[in-house]
Amino acid sequence: MSNTAEEIEIRFRDNLISSQLIETESSGLLAVSGGVDSVVMAYLFAQVRDNFRLTLAIAHFNHSLRGEESDTDEDFVKDLAKALGMPFFSEKWTSSERGNWEERAREARYSFLNKTRQQLGYDWIATAHHADDQAETLLMRLVEGSGYRGLRGILERNGKVVRPLLKFSKAEFTHYAGENEISFREDSSNQDTRFRRNRIRENILPQIKKLNPHFSQTAQRTASNMVEIAEWVEEHLHDLYGRAVSVSDKGFIQIDGKELKKVSSFLQKELVREVVNENDLPWRGHVWNNLNHFLEKATVGDIMVLPGDCKILKDRDRFLVMWETNLEDLNAFQLDIATPVSLKVRGHNFTMDLTKEPTFSSDGATEFIDFDQLDHGSLHLRLWQAGDRMVPLGMSGHKKVSDILVDAKVDRFSKMSQYVLTSGHEIVWLCGLRLNNKFKVTSSTSSVARLNWSHAERPEAH
Amino acid sequence: MSNTAEEIEIRFRDNLISSQLIETESSGLLAVSGGVDSVVMAYLFAQVRDNFRLTLAIAHFNHSLRGEESDTDEDFVKDLAKALGMPFFSEKWTSSERGNWEERAREARYSFLNKTRQQLGYDWIATAHHADDQAETLLMRLVEGSGYRGLRGILERNGKVVRPLLKFSKAEFTHYAGENEISFREDSSNQDTRFRRNRIRENILPQIKKLNPHFSQTAQRTASNMVEIAEWVEEHLHDLYGRAVSVSDKGFIQIDGKELKKVSSFLQKELVREVVNENDLPWRGHVWNNLNHFLEKATVGDIMVLPGDCKILKDRDRFLVMWETNLEDLNAFQLDIATPVSLKVRGHNFTMDLTKEPTFSSDGATEFIDFDQLDHGSLHLRLWQAGDRMVPLGMSGHKKVSDILVDAKVDRFSKMSQYVLTSGHEIVWLCGLRLNNKFKVTSSTSSVARLNWSHAERPEAH
Repeated sequence: MSNTAEEIEIRFRDNLISSQLIETESSGLLAVSGGVDSVVMAYLFAQVRDNFRLTLAIAHFNHSLRGEESDTDEDFVKDLAKALGMPFFSEKWTSSERGNWEERAREARYSFLNKTRQQLGYDWIATAHHADDQAETLLMRLVEGSGYRGLRGILERNGKVVRPLLKFSKAEFTHYAGENEISFREDSSNQDTRFRRNRIRENILPQIKKLNPHFSQTAQRTASNMVEIAEWVEEHLHDLYGRAVSVSDKGFIQIDGKELKKVSSFLQKELVREVVNENDLPWRGHVWNNLNHFLEKATVGDIMVLPGDCKILKDRDRFLVMWETNLEDLNAFQLDIATPVSLKVRGHNFTMDLTKEPTFSSDGATEFIDFDQLDHGSLHLRLWQAGDRMVPLGMSGHKKVSDILVDAKVDRFSKMSQYVLTSGHEIVWLCGLRLNNKFKVTSSTSSVARLNWSHAERPEAH
Repeated sequence: MSNTAEEIEIRFRDNLISSQLIETESSGLLAVSGGVDSVVMAYLFAQVRDNFRLTLAIAHFNHSLRGEESDTDEDFVKDLAKALGMPFFSEKWTSSERGNWEERAREARYSFLNKTRQQLGYDWIATAHHADDQAETLLMRLVEGSGYRGLRGILERNGKVVRPLLKFSKAEFTHYAGENEISFREDSSNQDTRFRRNRIRENILPQIKKLNPHFSQTAQRTASNMVEIAEWVEEHLHDLYGRAVSVSDKGFIQIDGKELKKVSSFLQKELVREVVNENDLPWRGHVWNNLNHFLEKATVGDIMVLPGDCKILKDRDRFLVMWETNLEDLNAFQLDIATPVSLKVRGHNFTMDLTKEPTFSSDGATEFIDFDQLDHGSLHLRLWQAGDRMVPLGMSGHKKVSDILVDAKVDRFSKMSQYVLTSGHEIVWLCGLRLNNKFKVTSSTSSVARLNWSHAERPEAH
């Protein structure tokens, strides 16, 4: 890299323009550790500050990893901020746990940056990731097992975080610092091969660079290719999501089986992944294989367990998706009837109020009951339980709730999360489905309560 | 890998069934080097031969790399074939060049296998690539710089070649050979780190396996993910090709600009790649970037030079694609008028014959001339040249060919490859476009020749 410092500045400025990563007249938080990469980034941004009419600040996350040395780093960056005329923000992190340190430190660092950006109203955060980081990341992702999403590597833009240095190498920063007599702090943790990334940096990358000295640029190209594919898949997925995903009348996410059949098995699986979890973690290979098989071959009633405590049920013309935690969260709610009740139960809204004008609905979402029949001290909303019985409206004998659900052709998932409104030991309402005959409104009813059970809003594609 | 030999056999058989790589009652050529992988493959196929009713033979390619040792390998494989009751075919290769040995050896080996398969009428070829090979290949592709196509790694099926062992590890083969007391030859070239692949095997893979001991399976999963994406892109590309690609009236490949605008820039570039070259070699990164820019911003008349001696011209509503070699190949043809002439000129068909019934066509593809006006000894078909002049039909004065082409609004590419039929020093026909007035059919014409100039068939999407 024989580029002069001036050439690096020009390339930085041109890239800021062509990549459209940041807008002119915007405000940004520069994440500066004190190492050569982030220090040079601060100088490069200072160079273009007036030109782009930027408002800049420096944020430093003190990992407290190396005791006093870490505090000296912080002082160094604070002085740098002062020298460049930028406000300085920092946070000190202490963590006694040693396991998975890297990942937790990373989360804490981004949490600090995001919080600071939001609180102070800055538009974006810039980090100093460069081409060599990209090469390491791509290798790490390949080693860990990543599909095309993981192989996008470090993204040039990820939400409010931008990486304007991905096309530059560390060697260029060192050169820039040398030519401009810029001082920086050595990050001693970089030489510590206890960490996965550093193992790749110290032991594997040098070997690879013997085969391809330009591997950093090569990696950035591969990452770009994956970004392009991922964006393209995203487009198609977004369309498909709009056509195929909705909320069932029981409040579950449902995927239209016919719409699913119209697309390739690749997109089918991607859609399920999108519905089930929205992060980039790669699913295990066998999950993909099983999911493939399930989407193709499942018959009505088959259930597949997916990552993230998720289950998927093959129903007639659809797949129903539900989370284990849907059920775990469902504690019984004790109701206070003195005031109108409005409760959010996962996936549903429940309301109860007094009314003077009972009407009749046919969909079961709204029911009217004789308020005086209730045992007001013990009103509960809970999941139905094995053994629950009630006298359905218009009948005289008790019937098992499980039988009522079977007769109503309620699918297995909905059945598992069917709510009941109870009063004392009696079931008042099999919510949204059937009223207990005992609580019906009659000619002698003096006080009418209106009950409503409706499912929550449709999930949004993102 | 604690699988017993029997478990390996069962898994091999089950995988043959579920992958549908080969059909029952088919015939196959097993590529056997003599190393443990391919020898075990031969034994595994021998195990299922009756069950699948297969006709099997063994093919051995003698690289002659290690002199006598190579010939001993060949004898060993010949004996193995005999022991397994399979016909044996071999070829000995000698190459004095040392540069890029691996690549040339690979080409020669596959050329031998394909030729042998075709000549003997076998249905497929099986090679013994396994999960560890896949891991090396994926790393190599990443190191060299590959997009999603390259990262598909070794394909389970590629034309007539199948790799039924990709889900097995080398350790399993060694185990299988040990348990069954199967002997094999050590491939000493494997230890030779002069070769790129072996460098990855010896220096890089062991480091990676320290981070992820299951990297071979991980790599196979990544490869599968890329195969899925590639197939999906292929589907879309095939549709787009059908809608957007055709042959222009001048015989060039043309891409409909409006159809191109309808799809993402990713697919636009993929389509151009498909039209320009059909192999999996990754294009350099800057070519992609430039192509992106060109497809978006080019104005009428702009030309971009692509790999493979290809040029692409932005015309009004289309892009025209042409190869440099289109022009280099175009030597002048000397015509023999004694018999009817039918010539294939790149992209076009030219015919000339005598006729009794001249008709008239309006498209310029067919013309009729006064046969007796020709200087029969010096008939040529050639590209027009700067300085060419002629008297266009219905006119009396000479006009420059270049001006005629401009007036006819012929695009730049078509202009470059415009043919003329000459007789002596005169242009008889600006092929497909304009006749020389001198050669027109008149009332005194006694012998009429019919000329035809039509473009070749439309290219096929594949």
